[in-house]
Amino acid sequence: MKNALNRRNFIKAAALTGASLGINPISKASPTILPQAPKSKIRLGFIGVGLRGQSHISLSLNRNDCEVAAICDIDQGMLDRTLQLIAKKGGRKPTIYGLEERAYLQMLEDKNIDAVIISTPWRWHSEMAIKAMEARKYVGLEVSGGFSLDECWQLVNTHEATGTHLFFLENVCYRRDIMAVLNMVRENLFGEIVHTECGYQHDLRHVKFNDGKQPYGGGVEFGQKGYSESRWRTQHSIHRDGDIYPTHGAGPISQMLNINRGNRMLYLTSMSSNARGLHDYIVHHEKGGPNHPNAKIKFKLGDVVTTTIKTANGEKIIVSHDTNLPRPYSLGFRVQGTKGLWMAVNKSIYIEGKSPSHRWEDAKPYLEKYDHPLWKRYEQRAVGAGHGGMDFFLLHAFIEHVKQNIAPPFDVYDAATWLSITPLSEQSIALGSQPMTFPDFTRGRWIDRKNTFASGNNF
Amino acid sequence: MKNALNRRNFIKAAALTGASLGINPISKASPTILPQAPKSKIRLGFIGVGLRGQSHISLSLNRNDCEVAAICDIDQGMLDRTLQLIAKKGGRKPTIYGLEERAYLQMLEDKNIDAVIISTPWRWHSEMAIKAMEARKYVGLEVSGGFSLDECWQLVNTHEATGTHLFFLENVCYRRDIMAVLNMVRENLFGEIVHTECGYQHDLRHVKFNDGKQPYGGGVEFGQKGYSESRWRTQHSIHRDGDIYPTHGAGPISQMLNINRGNRMLYLTSMSSNARGLHDYIVHHEKGGPNHPNAKIKFKLGDVVTTTIKTANGEKIIVSHDTNLPRPYSLGFRVQGTKGLWMAVNKSIYIEGKSPSHRWEDAKPYLEKYDHPLWKRYEQRAVGAGHGGMDFFLLHAFIEHVKQNIAPPFDVYDAATWLSITPLSEQSIALGSQPMTFPDFTRGRWIDRKNTFASGNNF
Repeated sequence: MKNALNRRNFIKAAALTGASLGINPISKASPTILPQAPKSKIRLGFIGVGLRGQSHISLSLNRNDCEVAAICDIDQGMLDRTLQLIAKKGGRKPTIYGLEERAYLQMLEDKNIDAVIISTPWRWHSEMAIKAMEARKYVGLEVSGGFSLDECWQLVNTHEATGTHLFFLENVCYRRDIMAVLNMVRENLFGEIVHTECGYQHDLRHVKFNDGKQPYGGGVEFGQKGYSESRWRTQHSIHRDGDIYPTHGAGPISQMLNINRGNRMLYLTSMSSNARGLHDYIVHHEKGGPNHPNAKIKFKLGDVVTTTIKTANGEKIIVSHDTNLPRPYSLGFRVQGTKGLWMAVNKSIYIEGKSPSHRWEDAKPYLEKYDHPLWKRYEQRAVGAGHGGMDFFLLHAFIEHVKQNIAPPFDVYDAATWLSITPLSEQSIALGSQPMTFPDFTRGRWIDRKNTFASGNNF
Repeated sequence: MKNALNRRNFIKAAALTGASLGINPISKASPTILPQAPKSKIRLGFIGVGLRGQSHISLSLNRNDCEVAAICDIDQGMLDRTLQLIAKKGGRKPTIYGLEERAYLQMLEDKNIDAVIISTPWRWHSEMAIKAMEARKYVGLEVSGGFSLDECWQLVNTHEATGTHLFFLENVCYRRDIMAVLNMVRENLFGEIVHTECGYQHDLRHVKFNDGKQPYGGGVEFGQKGYSESRWRTQHSIHRDGDIYPTHGAGPISQMLNINRGNRMLYLTSMSSNARGLHDYIVHHEKGGPNHPNAKIKFKLGDVVTTTIKTANGEKIIVSHDTNLPRPYSLGFRVQGTKGLWMAVNKSIYIEGKSPSHRWEDAKPYLEKYDHPLWKRYEQRAVGAGHGGMDFFLLHAFIEHVKQNIAPPFDVYDAATWLSITPLSEQSIALGSQPMTFPDFTRGRWIDRKNTFASGNNF
């Protein structure tokens, strides 16, 4: 099926060769694909080589079908760490760009780079992805929440104008239990899905604050005095109230509900709680206290933000954002249909006719039975990769798609949709939980688009 | 403290004696209380003696401080069953009213009846409660969702006009784990509460459908062909879309957040899923099938309805209604504050500084440590009472409040607030999840009212 799709795209793209790219994108029936023979090895450029970028580089260095050709960062320390990592793993020294905010534009001029992976602070994501598509680089874009609907449209329009793909790097789609549950959904174990829950429930206080030397904890500093993510991520909690990081929940659930592929997100409402957690953390930290200058900051981000999304096909998605309070990590998944449901937090499942009446069953045997073929095949290669192995699958899929220059499973339309949850959530909260409607970023093509994610056992 | 309050109320009420009841209720600073010496024994009238009413009667017959003086129902079979129950437990034969819909009005004329317990189909609740207050009976009103805001105001206005109390019979407030968690909240174990979840997640398909002979299951009949609750409850799933049964969640959480007592519900949004479960049940039942007449019915009640409520003090309450699908019972409680959280579904708790870092702990030792004094005192008497013993505490509290004629812990303002969730939820869903504002049924008195629920170890 993949080959068939690929051939069809190739023919369509070939027919369009020479068509004026960049003009009247709205009239196109589907994005153009530049014809290109599959490559056996690709050259990668990394824009942003903080800890997340380094993780991608480390996994790339394990492979013989890609080369870490170029790296870019504004932070000399992170460039140095990355060069050490590459040297340690026996990689060739890459071309280095950086120290200026738009040094990445020079990297994009290098015709020998096939694809870029963008792992920068959120505010740079769209600009960089747009410039990279314009430079005809296959784009891997790290996840975040968006800022405006306009920015989401720009991503879509640039893709349609250039024919260049954007792979939105949502790793949780590849989590082992999530892929098993996706398998169960596709096998109709839950019947028709009616209700889902998900979210990002992760105590990030030690990420948002540190001592300026280590990435996690040890102090209550951030911004110029912080290190790693605290240098930029914490600012969003000061200025914004909304679900500012929705994709780890919305991405996986979108695969199960075929969002943008026979279904779409119609509207949402969002509600926020008081913002107490970050102030409390500063005040009670041994290096903070009520007299620490940061104790004066008024944080806007509600400690728990709840967003309810309605789909065109009538399902609900409840998305939680909960990063300021002490709590165990949980993405809070719940997938519920006419025959039963799975919940992550109690690791349990209930399937009518299979489970003992009215009683939860341990989900484990089900997760093993429906383990996805990809996990069975690549389990050993995934050992040691970030976030329980799922980062291996993510990078693997990205590189395989780049080699063939084919449309990714989470593309620019998905990126636009998932990113848009954030500005819509902010708007809803600002207006007392008014419902906000999603643009149809596919311009009606969601009706015919097919879900191709993890449909085989290659990637 | 109870005595002090009681004395103050008594004095205030005494001063108001002779004031023209029923006139200009809005100008009153607080509801009047009719002066009355505490009684050692009270006479109870039961309006509605279906299975729920019979359960209250059975518990009443265990006590020597109340008498089952009168019963009323339109169903001869239920009257007969009730008389058998009373005879079996050695009770005196009560006066019987019934067979006509408004026969309960005759019961209300009996001056010897001190209080009534109303356990009828939902559509009768407000009318009967209003008539009972007008007849100066202390009212125990079974829970439900409301139909209109006007009805909620009528309850409030009648209480203020008559000075007669209404005890809203929300039994889950007395659940052992809930009272222990309330204790934890009051002891500040969770810090400041910011986010809560709750709901009614109960597979009621075998309640909504039966064979017309037994109350639970065995067929796909309802209405005139059904028995017990299926005779009337199922109709609500055909005609309404909203959280039609919100109080088992909203009631207990209201105690933790001091709703109407220093806090209040400000607004809500509600979102519904597709309605699939009930139709599926009929179609796949061995006594149903695609050709059964009930397979043609279009049910309106979304299988899972999610309501988000914002409070004046900034907390959130997420309320679920989920009664049409196969699933284990769970009210889905989550109570989360600046120091940690409790979740019912995984029976776990996390308290910063006490629990192992970032890991759930079994909630059991906490629930035992914070077990409420009422449960410790009355545990033995509660054995065998409905819903895990909590129904004992509910009836016990009701009778003790009637004996002293004092304001109940969940009063007419709470009833109005919790009932109003349903019409507001229906309106929100009908308008695409528009936010709907709660009336302030207390007319500003919520600012000064105190939470008295379970503040001692008497009731």
